[in-house]
Amino acid sequence: MLDLANMTPKEVRALIGKNEINKPTSGMCKGHIQANLVIVPKNLAYDFLLFAQRNPKSCPILDVTDVGSSEPRLMAKGADLKSDVPMYRIYEFGELVAEVSDLTDYWREDLVCFLLGCSFSFESAMLNASIPVRHIEDNHNVPMYITNIETEPAGQFHGKMVVSMRPIPYPLITRAVQATSRFPQVHGAPIHIGDPSVIGITDIHSPDFGDASLIKEGEVPVFWACGVTPQSIAMTSKPELMITHSPGYMFICDPKDEDLAVL
Amino acid sequence: MLDLANMTPKEVRALIGKNEINKPTSGMCKGHIQANLVIVPKNLAYDFLLFAQRNPKSCPILDVTDVGSSEPRLMAKGADLKSDVPMYRIYEFGELVAEVSDLTDYWREDLVCFLLGCSFSFESAMLNASIPVRHIEDNHNVPMYITNIETEPAGQFHGKMVVSMRPIPYPLITRAVQATSRFPQVHGAPIHIGDPSVIGITDIHSPDFGDASLIKEGEVPVFWACGVTPQSIAMTSKPELMITHSPGYMFICDPKDEDLAVL
Repeated sequence: MLDLANMTPKEVRALIGKNEINKPTSGMCKGHIQANLVIVPKNLAYDFLLFAQRNPKSCPILDVTDVGSSEPRLMAKGADLKSDVPMYRIYEFGELVAEVSDLTDYWREDLVCFLLGCSFSFESAMLNASIPVRHIEDNHNVPMYITNIETEPAGQFHGKMVVSMRPIPYPLITRAVQATSRFPQVHGAPIHIGDPSVIGITDIHSPDFGDASLIKEGEVPVFWACGVTPQSIAMTSKPELMITHSPGYMFICDPKDEDLAVL
Repeated sequence: MLDLANMTPKEVRALIGKNEINKPTSGMCKGHIQANLVIVPKNLAYDFLLFAQRNPKSCPILDVTDVGSSEPRLMAKGADLKSDVPMYRIYEFGELVAEVSDLTDYWREDLVCFLLGCSFSFESAMLNASIPVRHIEDNHNVPMYITNIETEPAGQFHGKMVVSMRPIPYPLITRAVQATSRFPQVHGAPIHIGDPSVIGITDIHSPDFGDASLIKEGEVPVFWACGVTPQSIAMTSKPELMITHSPGYMFICDPKDEDLAVL
């Protein structure tokens, strides 16, 4: 049995690249940044980069490859984004058309890869600050909701913000804001605390993505901008081609979560 | 005598737009964000946006206009970047070819405007935290230096990072780091504290831009990434056209400095 939690990112990426690991990456390479992946052709790259720039809470950029390159130089020198993610999704004109474990057959010389911060990093910060995270305790996927919050559009890209929700006990809400504020590059502080209807969520028990989390007596739903926003934006904006990771199957970076702290 | 410190950004921009104010903007519209301006043609906009993304400490982006538009929607709805900055510099192939108070004659339908965070905002944070700022006390321009720190290149853009320096008394260095860390969108925490030669500065008394600041007994030079970096990058990279504000003649935004705090 491999000790994936304590292996280095380079070791785990090598196994993923050879298809010897093909499962969600949660818990792997403890303490290291995991990232969302978005790949678009060069003719859409400016619009997407600008979209991310205008929507830093949902799309915080960690790295952008040069055109035609699949090496994320800043986050993982020598890695290959064509193979080092366990599962990819191919969207054409907003439709999910394939889910694959390797992009070699889909690669084009005009593609640009974006790595975006992921909530795994701020959940580590929460756990370090003794704030329990329900979906980790209960071992299910985080609940995610499409809100009524318009993202700032950019060129072809527009649509609603997606948020993730974690139930937090009243005495820990301030601490949760503080702990996650230190990490603006991985979604940062919450965007909403309390009544879900204020941001257009009508049924907290029926998330649009992921699984429902139990909200216990004395707990408040707290919402963070979510890295699934680009996939929702793809469905709304219908770009010719967008390739992403499959939810939960992230890219593991060399730097550590704490390297991203602003304070 | 106009009370420029307490007028609204909209009022002051209107006077600037009519050329009724034509001087450095330091001290105007107290508490409001002032921004660096960079304008490039669309064919360079992706490279510049990516350059800024890869160098967030020196080039923190606050707003990007749509192609051909001079309205910075997020930072000042209704404003006009063609006229609402008191003085502009025109660089062609890396050469400063003109300094003008209005861009109407230079405007092209393919231009994209970038507003970048400026040190005025974090200096407010320092003053609020009772940290003296020497060049404000002594009423001269901040000293700026070209370092030996390579920026992360992007497409056509490459070159060395420019830093600004403020002498800080030993007991206030930690506080200065804390106070400025709250504002990553306006250069954030220092990039270097102490011995200037470590970052390639050979003579602290001879800045490359601005005026020398006196470093008193018991004070340490502290260095922040500087928004003049794009102008230095223009000189190194020699793009066909880059228009900037003139140093000190900034664009005044509607939001307040404190709106940019991450914590």
